[in-house]
Parts: sequence; structure tokens; C-alpha cells
Amino acid sequence: MKQKAVFYHAGCPVCVSAEQSVLAALDRNRFDVEVVHLGTTKRRVSEAEKLGIKSVPALALDGQVFHINFGADLSALK
Amino acid sequence: MKQKAVFYHAGCPVCVSAEQSVLAALDRNRFDVEVVHLGTTKRRVSEAEKLGIKSVPALALDGQVFHINFGADLSALK
Repeated sequence: MKQKAVFYHAGCPVCVSAEQSVLAALDRNRFDVEVVHLGTTKRRVSEAEKLGIKSVPALALDGQVFHINFGADLSALK
Repeated sequence: MKQKAVFYHAGCPVCVSAEQSVLAALDRNRFDVEVVHLGTTKRRVSEAEKLGIKSVPALALDGQVFHINFGADLSALK
């Protein structure tokens, strides 16, 4: 069974860079990848908060959160 | 030709977590991966600085730097 990778972003330049490099580098044979734009999908901000996400871009690998550089604070997306 | 991924760390818990999750998730068919422990390989701290690394753990994908969470400031490793 594949592991789950969820990439949370807000369309910011830092987010796009992380998506194009880090997310694109993941092994798709082992990970199902979902991309969530929190700026346009605000109902998922609370999900991100529960995971422990403080800023975007962030990558959740099987629920474990990794903040990648800094684009925007989650509070700015509410 | 494979792309180059260099993971800079200092053996800290945050570093180990990022190595075991993010680095382990990379597609090894597309990336040659190198792991650099800056705490024990201090001569490479200046290389990391030149790349723009401010803290560890950090992942450089073809020279592009992504700080992953925060373990330690690079200045603490000099």
C-alpha cells in the first residue's frame, strides 16, 4: 500500500518552488500525492492546523509534518 | 543523468526525523543522494553557507535549498 503525502500551500512563490522541487522529487511509486491549496480551499485550514502545520509550504508524510522554507503563516490564510 | 540531492544535518532529532521521512521519500531512480553531517564534517559548513543554508536540516536539490523544519542554526556548527 502506498504512503500518503499531502502538500499544503497557498500559491506563493516559495510554495511553488517547493512544489516543483521537493514534491516533484518524491517517489510516486511509494507515495500517493495530494496537493492542497489552502488559500482557495479554506475549509481544509483546520485540518492543516490539527496536523500541526504553522506555515506553508508544508509537506505531511503519513501525517508527519515538515515545514519547507517559509512562504506564509497559516493564520494569514484563515 | 541523475539529479543531485544533498541532505545537510547535524545529528539532531529534527534532522533525523527529516532524514528518515523526507529524504527517504525521494525517488532514488532520479536522485543521487548524499548525506552530510555538518557537526562532524566542519570543513563543509562553508559549502553549506555558500548554498544559502541558514539552518539544518536542509535539503539541496540541484543546488536549490530547502530548509526543513528547524533543528539548529548553521552558526552553532562553526
